[in-house]
Amino acid sequence: MKAAILSIGDELLIGQTINTNAAWLGKELTQLGIAIDVSWTIQDTAEAIHTSLDQLIPKVDLIVCTGGLGPTKDDLTKHALCEYFGTTLEINKEILTRIEDFFKRRKREMLEVNIQQAALPVDCTILHNYHGTASGMWFEKDGCIVISLPGVPYEMKGIMNDEVLPRLRDIFPVQEIYFDTLMTQGIGESFLAEKIEDWENKVRGLGYKLAYLPSPGIVRLRLSSEKGASEKERIQELLKEVQERLPQHVYSLGEIPLAATLGELLMDRGLTIGTVESCSGGSISKELVRIPGSSRYYEGSLVVYSYAQKENVLGIPHEQLSEYGAVSKEVITQMAINGQKKLGTNICIATSGIAGPSGGTKDKPVGTVWVAVTDGEIVFAKQFFFGDNRERNIQVSTLTALNLARCFVLGILAEKKEATLV
Amino acid sequence: MKAAILSIGDELLIGQTINTNAAWLGKELTQLGIAIDVSWTIQDTAEAIHTSLDQLIPKVDLIVCTGGLGPTKDDLTKHALCEYFGTTLEINKEILTRIEDFFKRRKREMLEVNIQQAALPVDCTILHNYHGTASGMWFEKDGCIVISLPGVPYEMKGIMNDEVLPRLRDIFPVQEIYFDTLMTQGIGESFLAEKIEDWENKVRGLGYKLAYLPSPGIVRLRLSSEKGASEKERIQELLKEVQERLPQHVYSLGEIPLAATLGELLMDRGLTIGTVESCSGGSISKELVRIPGSSRYYEGSLVVYSYAQKENVLGIPHEQLSEYGAVSKEVITQMAINGQKKLGTNICIATSGIAGPSGGTKDKPVGTVWVAVTDGEIVFAKQFFFGDNRERNIQVSTLTALNLARCFVLGILAEKKEATLV
Repeated sequence: MKAAILSIGDELLIGQTINTNAAWLGKELTQLGIAIDVSWTIQDTAEAIHTSLDQLIPKVDLIVCTGGLGPTKDDLTKHALCEYFGTTLEINKEILTRIEDFFKRRKREMLEVNIQQAALPVDCTILHNYHGTASGMWFEKDGCIVISLPGVPYEMKGIMNDEVLPRLRDIFPVQEIYFDTLMTQGIGESFLAEKIEDWENKVRGLGYKLAYLPSPGIVRLRLSSEKGASEKERIQELLKEVQERLPQHVYSLGEIPLAATLGELLMDRGLTIGTVESCSGGSISKELVRIPGSSRYYEGSLVVYSYAQKENVLGIPHEQLSEYGAVSKEVITQMAINGQKKLGTNICIATSGIAGPSGGTKDKPVGTVWVAVTDGEIVFAKQFFFGDNRERNIQVSTLTALNLARCFVLGILAEKKEATLV
Repeated sequence: MKAAILSIGDELLIGQTINTNAAWLGKELTQLGIAIDVSWTIQDTAEAIHTSLDQLIPKVDLIVCTGGLGPTKDDLTKHALCEYFGTTLEINKEILTRIEDFFKRRKREMLEVNIQQAALPVDCTILHNYHGTASGMWFEKDGCIVISLPGVPYEMKGIMNDEVLPRLRDIFPVQEIYFDTLMTQGIGESFLAEKIEDWENKVRGLGYKLAYLPSPGIVRLRLSSEKGASEKERIQELLKEVQERLPQHVYSLGEIPLAATLGELLMDRGLTIGTVESCSGGSISKELVRIPGSSRYYEGSLVVYSYAQKENVLGIPHEQLSEYGAVSKEVITQMAINGQKKLGTNICIATSGIAGPSGGTKDKPVGTVWVAVTDGEIVFAKQFFFGDNRERNIQVSTLTALNLARCFVLGILAEKKEATLV
């Protein structure tokens, strides 16, 4: 069972839009046991659409197209597909009523271009869009299913979940590929590989496929088997061996955000958390709040970006800031302690660093970041050197701080002896 | 001059990694006047690599491959390319020295797998990697250039900037496509299209290509010409017509983050800003801090997520919270006023809403968000209804708040008469 993803749109080719749809579709189809053979991005011209379908239809069983179904004049996928499958457009009354309702419910005026979105091919299965006004379409040709969906991720996902995935589950009931992922933080790809070399040789010997997937601050370890879901238990057991070996770095089995893992831990223990952020600038807070239900353990944050805010909001003594600078063990320790008291949370994370591009000195180059965590009784502070890219430094600081808090709560800080009493 | 992007890696196909590399490469090559014909993502097998090269080499002048050059065993691009171009691997002494230096400077131990990264094809141009240990490679066949780069975005971009783009600029000096983008916030695609219908007909009549690129909270309007950079002035003039027509929505000509536009305005006027965030949870702060140099106008934020923090940190009266609830005109107005005083900034933005998935009521459904902005003299508060998706609500709240602050500073708030005195 093989599929192709066909993303249509110049904005993707010229890099104005990052193709998150292809990733989401890849994940959903893989979970159904459908192997993604290729994922192509093409220009939004009828010619490019026709040529690609000619090449892909003989190769795969399913093609999911996205893009070009909007109400504006640059959207031509519907017309190109009509031509390709030899059918015509007609106003679909049921869909027109739905579109009218959509605008009524939102108390918004309906435009002529929106009425035209009810003009749909006569010979195809219409896929209802409950989140917008562009319907999806399901065609079949030479044993290949061709689905066309809007490019707006929110609407595309809605139609997939409501209309496409249930149908595909009925048609292709067998799960063929199984994989699971171990999430690690704070260890580079080569070092991880060295630490698990014996294990890697073992799993490869057993016929599993292993991939290292690095991104800033995180390396994911994906173990997969083509034997399907029957391998689930064995794959999880094998990954747990790595988890037991590297508890400071492995934060979850399964692709869960680090903030969610930390959140689970806090909830289990009935603890609350807050943050005091300088260089991470609210990013740790944002990560924590992203997780639904985080109000059960997350209280709030003080983003003390300027020296003035560190003094006024957090009460860091002026002399301490002048003597040591904001990026120092002394100040980060005080930030964590004062923040924990001010917010009244069980746990408080603090960051202070030089994100760049400017602000670095010889002693404290760009990328120097201090992170501290405290429970009001002991405080642990650690210095890191991340590099010279601002966005990366903010991101890696955020992940490092979250992982430090996780290890702190679990009582497995590698260098806990270095912690000091508050 | 046509190019193809070839992204190699199962992690992209199965959606574990979002392909940001293809977008970045698309943007860079387009800016050079190279048209992106297709962007393909394929499996990391020698067969998939060989088949794709067979299909693409006759069609395009340049192929940029990414992925599969890491130090671990799942990285096989180097070997597949060696085989395809009929060459062999040999340890490159210069590169080995560079890799040794790389580890020395970072005070990290060097591993055997890292030594193997100096094994490179004899018959290719080596592209130096100053940010990592995987070198890039430049091959040529039948008039087509084939470049192979590591998949880690940071390293890929480094090699492109240092080694590839300067060479391509020499080889292909003509800029053929020119486009510019207008950024809008707070207006849907269909409504934007209706408001500029006459303008759209005009620019299409003049032979320009127009695209609407919607993402949560933002619609980008891209106007392009195949006549190249000579059209720059005319395209910018045309886009400025839209900007003048919709000043509350158009925040920039050119793809600049909204927080950067706001930052520029604040700097011009010598103003400082701070935020008080509930439902946006630090996300506005994060957006402001992302911009290099933001310390010149951004002071700090109080993320008062819980009721307790709204009372303790911000001093919102308990009675006001109980009577009106946190998501109300009364509380958001007070949050902005107290936040501005507490932080001592010229401008203060506040948010409070129900991000979901839970917490909604009949009167205040999930997606209800209040945003306020104040300069300490007047305060403006506005209610929005965004929808039922948590991440989207956080993102759209953030952009809406930043745009409201922009209009406030510019004195062009559409409903400024609704503002009240502090």
